[in-house]
Amino acid sequence: MHTPLCDDLGIEFPIFAFTHCRDVVAAVSKAGGFGVLGAVGFTPEELEIELNWIDEHIGDRPYGVDIVIPNKYEGMDSDMSGDDLTKMLQSMVPQQHLDFAHKILADHGLPADDLDQNALQLLGWTEATATPQVEVALQHPKVTLIANALGTPPADMIEHIHAAGRKVAALCGSPYQARKHADAGVDIIIAQGGEGGGHCGEVGSIVLWPQVVKEVAPVPVLAAGGIGSGQQIAAALALGAQGAWSGSQWLMVEEAQNTAVQQDAYVKATSRDTVRSRSFTGKPCRMLRNEWTEAWAQEDNPDPLGMPLQYMVSGMAVAATHKYPDQSVDVAFNPVGQVVGQFTKVEKTAAVVERWVQEYLDATGTLERLNDAASV
Amino acid sequence: MHTPLCDDLGIEFPIFAFTHCRDVVAAVSKAGGFGVLGAVGFTPEELEIELNWIDEHIGDRPYGVDIVIPNKYEGMDSDMSGDDLTKMLQSMVPQQHLDFAHKILADHGLPADDLDQNALQLLGWTEATATPQVEVALQHPKVTLIANALGTPPADMIEHIHAAGRKVAALCGSPYQARKHADAGVDIIIAQGGEGGGHCGEVGSIVLWPQVVKEVAPVPVLAAGGIGSGQQIAAALALGAQGAWSGSQWLMVEEAQNTAVQQDAYVKATSRDTVRSRSFTGKPCRMLRNEWTEAWAQEDNPDPLGMPLQYMVSGMAVAATHKYPDQSVDVAFNPVGQVVGQFTKVEKTAAVVERWVQEYLDATGTLERLNDAASV
Repeated sequence: MHTPLCDDLGIEFPIFAFTHCRDVVAAVSKAGGFGVLGAVGFTPEELEIELNWIDEHIGDRPYGVDIVIPNKYEGMDSDMSGDDLTKMLQSMVPQQHLDFAHKILADHGLPADDLDQNALQLLGWTEATATPQVEVALQHPKVTLIANALGTPPADMIEHIHAAGRKVAALCGSPYQARKHADAGVDIIIAQGGEGGGHCGEVGSIVLWPQVVKEVAPVPVLAAGGIGSGQQIAAALALGAQGAWSGSQWLMVEEAQNTAVQQDAYVKATSRDTVRSRSFTGKPCRMLRNEWTEAWAQEDNPDPLGMPLQYMVSGMAVAATHKYPDQSVDVAFNPVGQVVGQFTKVEKTAAVVERWVQEYLDATGTLERLNDAASV
Repeated sequence: MHTPLCDDLGIEFPIFAFTHCRDVVAAVSKAGGFGVLGAVGFTPEELEIELNWIDEHIGDRPYGVDIVIPNKYEGMDSDMSGDDLTKMLQSMVPQQHLDFAHKILADHGLPADDLDQNALQLLGWTEATATPQVEVALQHPKVTLIANALGTPPADMIEHIHAAGRKVAALCGSPYQARKHADAGVDIIIAQGGEGGGHCGEVGSIVLWPQVVKEVAPVPVLAAGGIGSGQQIAAALALGAQGAWSGSQWLMVEEAQNTAVQQDAYVKATSRDTVRSRSFTGKPCRMLRNEWTEAWAQEDNPDPLGMPLQYMVSGMAVAATHKYPDQSVDVAFNPVGQVVGQFTKVEKTAAVVERWVQEYLDATGTLERLNDAASV
């Protein structure tokens, strides 16, 4: 599965692993893939600590950092400080929504008042908060890729990253978005089908990937959404991708900091147990269906707010997930793709990479034998 | 792409083409694939005429017939005659729903009263109406496969088809349904991802196909949902399928009887222009989004009825599609998968088969070269 992009990035396998856990980033890159740390949720100071740790443990391998800068929000000035932004956003959240969120949590025995102060931690979802993260990342020479998970990165940020000698990647869910990325100078396009965990579109991977490949050629495309085996990577490469971008699988490795409760929920879930819900982030985001997602989906209840306001409401449920993992399981934020239905156990990161490579060789070997037999 | 299933069925390529047009069935089988005629909408007498025509034009090639027997409806006795069933069902349709449908059509200048008498033609969606279709099909020796598009066929029907020396296929949208099919003795499982046109589930093809393959092995699986190129067939075979089942593409061939208006709508549509809607059949069915689907989706309007009742209401819109193709375009039933975004033109059937085979060889050739380069 070694594609030209592997040579560009100095890696063995085009297996890109998105994760919030530094241990997983290091383990994937050391196994020959490319680890990418999700920076959302870290302050610049915290991010610096994480990247220093990775630098020390990753050897001479490269890795990436993933940020989230959606398109501009209405009424938001990009020069605003983080604190001013927070105050402005807080003032925009209707009391009705806070009350409803409190009620869901209280119904599950979770003391919402105790959690409120944590409710803003994900404000990395703005240009104001993502820019300092990029500055931190660029101080680390082994960070050779900055990825943006939502929308085309601003032109000056792309220029800035290129000037530092690093590459820029960006996720998309349609050929239209892919074209905007490519025109803006994005180096690697990540085409994520609607199967994917987290923010995703509605078009399935099998349809989306080749459309994006065709739209942006010769810009390399990574296939995302439904990657959880070497067979799926073989399918991606057959459809013209130069590699695979995966997230869900890395929640299910020993090196991940995900709780046993969450990993157990993923093992039990089938592919039909996820839902694209706006109830946590305000944008459609795929996650396990539970009582939180169902409550916000009911007709008579408040509609979720937009991004980033909904997180001002849901942040307390996310905080509860961390603080009370056992009690919060029915209202927790469990972002994951439909590929969750394949998970049967927690594995070592290196074992996953090795398994995927072997499965890839088995799948492409089967295709070769079919062609050989047909030409006899 | 010649798989063991090809030998079982005596075909060259495992390209299964679902279509309502007899000309397409014959053209696909003659090009080395396997044409499957959708019998829904034909009376037994009409079906007999279609199959006789195919027998005369298909040479010595085999083909299939597709029927629709969903799970039992509530309150329906399977011994009921077609006429009694029709009367019973008509009595169950609320006037509010008929009025709402009339209003949508009237708003688009379509005289609903003129169309009502056609509103029951799709009653092939029951065991009572599908059984005579199977009887007709089994009189034709070149019909070597009977496929059921919705649910596990009744046990006695499977036995009856097997006794006649033919194979049974059935569509599914989950490993759970696939297991039920396999346990019932279905010979070929068609795993259709949520990308697919017509009735479909929610799990994407890239995730669904390998799960179904694993669940029912060694029963052969056909990959459906998102098949519109040879690359997509290569992806399907990499994921363990023994062939591909396709529908949307065959709306876009010269031999199809689809109207120019409809084909033009398909050429213009992107993959984001389809929707899973219950507004025509009562079950989630993927089609082009238009003013009919949007009207039924609005919160204040009536919710679609279940299957088969909703068709008692929507049948008049379908009739309008045939009778007034130009005026009805905004309310027409245009079932199609997300793969519609790939369509740029109408092609000859044989040219599509030839193109898919070449694309398949190109895609698998690329994978072979990657493996060869990696092993140097």
